[in-house]
Amino acid sequence: MLINLDFESDEPIYQQLVHQIIDGIARKELQPGDSLPSVRSLASDIGINLHTVNKAYQQLKQEGFIQIHRQKGVVIHPEGVPKADEDYKKRLIHHLRPYVAESICREVSEAEFVELCKSIYKTYQGGHS
Amino acid sequence: MLINLDFESDEPIYQQLVHQIIDGIARKELQPGDSLPSVRSLASDIGINLHTVNKAYQQLKQEGFIQIHRQKGVVIHPEGVPKADEDYKKRLIHHLRPYVAESICREVSEAEFVELCKSIYKTYQGGHS
Repeated sequence: MLINLDFESDEPIYQQLVHQIIDGIARKELQPGDSLPSVRSLASDIGINLHTVNKAYQQLKQEGFIQIHRQKGVVIHPEGVPKADEDYKKRLIHHLRPYVAESICREVSEAEFVELCKSIYKTYQGGHS
Repeated sequence: MLINLDFESDEPIYQQLVHQIIDGIARKELQPGDSLPSVRSLASDIGINLHTVNKAYQQLKQEGFIQIHRQKGVVIHPEGVPKADEDYKKRLIHHLRPYVAESICREVSEAEFVELCKSIYKTYQGGHS
């Protein structure tokens, strides 16, 4: 999978890395059990700090996207990502809320916002983004 | 308007401040032309750094939510917040994308995601959150 980082972005690099790996899983480009590069080799491949890759991997591990084995290395969680529970949906609402608030201020209607979300969902169908 | 900051949160304080003011505008609790406290008085009221309030106000100003006058002080933009343009919608899609991706990984259906967004929109109707 190709990793594309934007070094000009306000979004921290580790966060971009987290998002891209989750994106790869959503597009089914990364499948349960697939190997990811080691911290060291990913850091050197994309020319970023070991610590940055480590931070991304630790977050992905904690949220159930990957497993980190001493011997087998880093793999996409073989049993799949944990399904959304009430706690996840609560956090999701908390995160989406500011975008809804700003959209309301900017007169984006509910229907328009919903269409926009549907258009994003569509980009994940058929296995390409 | 009551400001509620969560000092335990991962979200930077200035960002929480930005979100709460935008939230107040979305709920129509803050109306065009309404005054906001000065940087100094808001910082001292909620016990945070001047620099933090200043950073929040500068971002709100840049995005067209407020005006900062040397004499009149800080006011909600009297002509209202600029409407969403194509550029805003592009940025919105960019920001929502990781949440859609993670939701797909966690088997949240498009319909469920849409319902969730609608439920957030509903909290802004009737002028209270």
